[in-house]
Amino acid sequence: MSSSIGNLFRLTTFGESHGSSIGGIIDGCPSGFSIDLKSLQQYLDRRRPGASSIVSQRKEFDEVEILSGVFEGKSLGTPIGFLIKNIDQKSKDYDALKSVYRPSHADFTYDKKYGVRDYRGGGRSSARETANWVVAGAIAAQILKTKGIVVCSFVSSVGGVDISEDYVNLDLDAVYKNEVRCPCAKSAKLMQAVIKKCRDNGDTVGGCVSTVVKGVPFGLGEPVFNKFQAGISRAIMSINACKGISFGSGFSSSTKTGSMENDEFILNSGAVSTKTNNSGGVQGGITNGQDVYFHAAFKPVSTLMQSQNTVTADCKEIAFTAAGRHDPCVVPRAVCVVESLTAIVILDYYLLNKTTKISEL
Amino acid sequence: MSSSIGNLFRLTTFGESHGSSIGGIIDGCPSGFSIDLKSLQQYLDRRRPGASSIVSQRKEFDEVEILSGVFEGKSLGTPIGFLIKNIDQKSKDYDALKSVYRPSHADFTYDKKYGVRDYRGGGRSSARETANWVVAGAIAAQILKTKGIVVCSFVSSVGGVDISEDYVNLDLDAVYKNEVRCPCAKSAKLMQAVIKKCRDNGDTVGGCVSTVVKGVPFGLGEPVFNKFQAGISRAIMSINACKGISFGSGFSSSTKTGSMENDEFILNSGAVSTKTNNSGGVQGGITNGQDVYFHAAFKPVSTLMQSQNTVTADCKEIAFTAAGRHDPCVVPRAVCVVESLTAIVILDYYLLNKTTKISEL
Amino acid sequence: MSSSIGNLFRLTTFGESHGSSIGGIIDGCPSGFSIDLKSLQQYLDRRRPGASSIVSQRKEFDEVEILSGVFEGKSLGTPIGFLIKNIDQKSKDYDALKSVYRPSHADFTYDKKYGVRDYRGGGRSSARETANWVVAGAIAAQILKTKGIVVCSFVSSVGGVDISEDYVNLDLDAVYKNEVRCPCAKSAKLMQAVIKKCRDNGDTVGGCVSTVVKGVPFGLGEPVFNKFQAGISRAIMSINACKGISFGSGFSSSTKTGSMENDEFILNSGAVSTKTNNSGGVQGGITNGQDVYFHAAFKPVSTLMQSQNTVTADCKEIAFTAAGRHDPCVVPRAVCVVESLTAIVILDYYLLNKTTKISEL
Amino acid sequence: MSSSIGNLFRLTTFGESHGSSIGGIIDGCPSGFSIDLKSLQQYLDRRRPGASSIVSQRKEFDEVEILSGVFEGKSLGTPIGFLIKNIDQKSKDYDALKSVYRPSHADFTYDKKYGVRDYRGGGRSSARETANWVVAGAIAAQILKTKGIVVCSFVSSVGGVDISEDYVNLDLDAVYKNEVRCPCAKSAKLMQAVIKKCRDNGDTVGGCVSTVVKGVPFGLGEPVFNKFQAGISRAIMSINACKGISFGSGFSSSTKTGSMENDEFILNSGAVSTKTNNSGGVQGGITNGQDVYFHAAFKPVSTLMQSQNTVTADCKEIAFTAAGRHDPCVVPRAVCVVESLTAIVILDYYLLNKTTKISEL
Repeated sequence: MSSSIGNLFRLTTFGESHGSSIGGIIDGCPSGFSIDLKSLQQYLDRRRPGASSIVSQRKEFDEVEILSGVFEGKSLGTPIGFLIKNIDQKSKDYDALKSVYRPSHADFTYDKKYGVRDYRGGGRSSARETANWVVAGAIAAQILKTKGIVVCSFVSSVGGVDISEDYVNLDLDAVYKNEVRCPCAKSAKLMQAVIKKCRDNGDTVGGCVSTVVKGVPFGLGEPVFNKFQAGISRAIMSINACKGISFGSGFSSSTKTGSMENDEFILNSGAVSTKTNNSGGVQGGITNGQDVYFHAAFKPVSTLMQSQNTVTADCKEIAFTAAGRHDPCVVPRAVCVVESLTAIVILDYYLLNKTTKISEL
Repeated sequence: MSSSIGNLFRLTTFGESHGSSIGGIIDGCPSGFSIDLKSLQQYLDRRRPGASSIVSQRKEFDEVEILSGVFEGKSLGTPIGFLIKNIDQKSKDYDALKSVYRPSHADFTYDKKYGVRDYRGGGRSSARETANWVVAGAIAAQILKTKGIVVCSFVSSVGGVDISEDYVNLDLDAVYKNEVRCPCAKSAKLMQAVIKKCRDNGDTVGGCVSTVVKGVPFGLGEPVFNKFQAGISRAIMSINACKGISFGSGFSSSTKTGSMENDEFILNSGAVSTKTNNSGGVQGGITNGQDVYFHAAFKPVSTLMQSQNTVTADCKEIAFTAAGRHDPCVVPRAVCVVESLTAIVILDYYLLNKTTKISEL
Repeated sequence: MSSSIGNLFRLTTFGESHGSSIGGIIDGCPSGFSIDLKSLQQYLDRRRPGASSIVSQRKEFDEVEILSGVFEGKSLGTPIGFLIKNIDQKSKDYDALKSVYRPSHADFTYDKKYGVRDYRGGGRSSARETANWVVAGAIAAQILKTKGIVVCSFVSSVGGVDISEDYVNLDLDAVYKNEVRCPCAKSAKLMQAVIKKCRDNGDTVGGCVSTVVKGVPFGLGEPVFNKFQAGISRAIMSINACKGISFGSGFSSSTKTGSMENDEFILNSGAVSTKTNNSGGVQGGITNGQDVYFHAAFKPVSTLMQSQNTVTADCKEIAFTAAGRHDPCVVPRAVCVVESLTAIVILDYYLLNKTTKISEL
Repeated sequence: MSSSIGNLFRLTTFGESHGSSIGGIIDGCPSGFSIDLKSLQQYLDRRRPGASSIVSQRKEFDEVEILSGVFEGKSLGTPIGFLIKNIDQKSKDYDALKSVYRPSHADFTYDKKYGVRDYRGGGRSSARETANWVVAGAIAAQILKTKGIVVCSFVSSVGGVDISEDYVNLDLDAVYKNEVRCPCAKSAKLMQAVIKKCRDNGDTVGGCVSTVVKGVPFGLGEPVFNKFQAGISRAIMSINACKGISFGSGFSSSTKTGSMENDEFILNSGAVSTKTNNSGGVQGGITNGQDVYFHAAFKPVSTLMQSQNTVTADCKEIAFTAAGRHDPCVVPRAVCVVESLTAIVILDYYLLNKTTKISEL
């Protein structure tokens, strides 16, 4: 069950980074929806390595093949099987890794848990898996868009360089106008410099991805163990290198008083709204109709072009320097992964919420 | 399905704060385990209001009745049904709330989602529900203890007053030596002062709970969508007022370089260990045998003894001041809730991991 | 997870026959539904022992207490916790059973699986558990009724005495007009005689329960592993003593040719209907708008008032004669259990089906 | 969730009969198991059409490609993705079906449920899907075999011609010695004649598949809603054309008395055994260490080479005669499908049972 996410809109995936292909099955996609396959592919291309100077130069075309569940352009309501071939695997790059436990990688834990491991490039633990998530996320986002729900993620911090602006003042249409995928051009420039400097040092750097969801209706989220923020957190914390998540005012709320933090209800053209949105759009685990927003922290990529000390599977201490083509900073490519998982989770909540009230059945 | 947590060790709960009782069913508790019911009750008493000067003065005895699944002191392997009666409900306190949407409470969202609401004291959205979690958590913790796994949570921050020490330098046996439940006596005193000041102002204050789990074997966690940190995050983010969670070095890792952040593997008496533990004991979603640690942020309690502006169900703007007996700061009582959910999740991973390797079946 | 049934409308239960009580949690009941508690109790009374001369003379009042999820007569959308006290437990009757494995009972298998057992009256394996199912089934049936869906089960066979009539010729309103709960008065009389004769011999006898569901809309059922008949079969085969289930023409269809068995489509007042209904209302795992009907076979109750050979937990061969108050034939009391599980499963399918078409979201 | 089966060993599938391929993902396969891929393919070939004179003459090579989860011959513990290409699709055969609702097929119900349909050869409702199940079943069977558990299914009835022998007297190694896959050569000959006669008439015929599982340890099955027989029934009733299932003495038990039906416990070389096995190896939903056996009834294939009356999507009554290459009798090919699902379900119970007793954790 661990390779699945979602209850009614449910993605199940497979694939090692250096097997023949990766892929997945989307079960529970509503029927009769016209999937825009070209737009899906374009969306997937955002995650692709080799797309800019500050990400991995591996060439993966990541062309998705839809194998089932779509007929004459429309979803059938049956499972959508899909495949992405692995075509630029340079497995030989990884021969050296057969018995090395790379620091902060999953080599050791996979070896210990499963007793066997595909040592070529991370295998199942590789972030290549996230391409599967983007396929499902793209479909979910297309469906949500028809309901007026739009998910927008962006880089809000790299190596300590933060956007200082509140999100409401940002131009979210500008996210893809720079390689960092940060809507603030000024910060983006500084972030890019940080990333390049790290890359030049054979080092890597961490960062944050923030997400704003507009148009979320009230009522999404299923207390008490499937609260909106709990479902989102489970998904986002599944992303490789993600170390933390916070909603609305987040960790800073822990330093505040209730009189500073509470969101007073107000009337806005006759409708119930809130004066502030420290809650990040969620109260009691249910969306309140305001913008949903949350932040995710990513550690620096673990693969360095520097020598590090580590141990081997047969318990020898060695010095190790990685080869291959790796990202100096993962957050620009993580943006669409965060967006995708968010869309999957929200669509699932949207469907679940359709069965709540007896008066609407 | 939203009232359940866990796959093999599974808790399902029910209950509104002002109904006749709350309770739950623990399904999948291993058979033949001698449950220490006295210790379970003592554990539950830690969550109880009225236990110190800085928490709510409501009197709830929270006596748990075990209704099934335990026979002659041992778990039967069948579901453990349990009940906690609600005995100090002063529902009249809540009559005024019938049509008021309290700021940052779930009154509005429950009303909108379900179209009907038990307005007495939060109903299902009340933190009273967490008593159910502590019952299951206490049993999980007892089982884990026999496997050498010990979960310890504590208050690490209140209103901006932080423990400055690294957790490894703290005396975790001292957590319950003060009302704040902070293992650093000096910080505890400052935190207590902050809480009392807020209480005296009719205000509330937020804080953080940190958790250290010792004795976790490697191999727990199920990639890719049921990674260790994803399962913990889903659980902890289900707690009322929780706004964020981070593992190991957490959000600060986003400001670091890989060469600063990576945990180099070393040999420790011949066994593979790590030099640092920025990962918080998890790599690739699987525990690596080091201490697990993570942090959770809680916003201030929403119920203030001050006047706030808000709106009513029939769309009138009013000023509202709460009555009743409420916590000025929730984190001291949240400590055992965080511990309990952590124990539930870890036991579940422990059981799941028993079915991994063909050689151990 | 094994004590739960249903996906969106989900029942989780607990309870041993001789513990203090049994009960359950209904999660996902739509909000705003006016539950008729009096009618619920009357429905539950149908299952009660002691109600007629041909069933067990134990006195269980089976009064259900609703503990949560209902407020001012309406479902809140939150979990409905409920309890049924065990009040006429004569546990002493069971002392003799401590170490005896009663033939065809679950004493042996529970002992071997769990290593520990509540030997008083079957414990968790007792059919007393089915009272929990009837509580949830009664609520599901009330909801379904508002959608025009009516489930009707009845005894169609006892000890080889069958109703010879096709179900369409039966007066389904007559089911509760006799103690056997068979809509054909003539057959009922013969069945009653068979049961009484068995009872007088200290023996028991098997029988069949047939079910007709009217008003089922087309579209219920979720291929490929949650087909309508698969979900119903899983539920019905969970009933104690149930040995088989068949849909529509059932096992006899295996002896037929396609030209005899196929249900030709016809137009009925302009609507698509079928000329025959050998399919039992289901095609491809999805209801087709015709009556759903199926049959379940129950073996004779295993507890005999006769001497039988068996073995003890410490591996001695003994002769054993049961004491206590038992049913000579379970099918009259099974009728409302079959109905209840059917209602639970159908309501679940009904809710699932609300999320199928994009055009209806 | 409807395209998945199993809890810990979990198969999720996709595919329409006339799409580019079908396939699936097996999640939770234990790691370190040496999968015999050649034997897997041979097993799959048993299901293939075109293999004998009495089944469909379509040519599907059904070559399975394993895409992930297996490395250097061993299972990785990660999901096993697999694919079977559809290569002999004669979609033009189906153009005539675009708007016809074939009698007793799923055309009508899919159309009504989903509002859209892949009309080429049944689409998702085609029995082609069962090839996916056989892939997973073959792997499950290989694993079970190492635990001494062997599943054997066979044709026990065709068009009213039954094997009269009790299963214990049959030579189960002889199942594949004839085209009918019936272990009794004499009955097989009669069955074959029935099938050929039906085929020559453009008609089809139903039959039964019986299953014996040897070597099942006691303890498998999870009361109360995941009882052994409930899990098996859900799986088997998912098979296309399956109309009923019964365990052990099955429907005939409903005509018996307890004194005839009960299985007395005896000692067999000091171990607890049963004198008879009317229970079919299961008591209280848990296996008792005896042979498991059950029977499944299949209706005749719905596609006839005869004219039948039916209606069209635009509500016209027409006469319809099928074209294409279809099975006159499905049961010979269903044998390995029944076996496969049985193996999947039993392996899942086997894994679940590993987490039952505290003393074995």
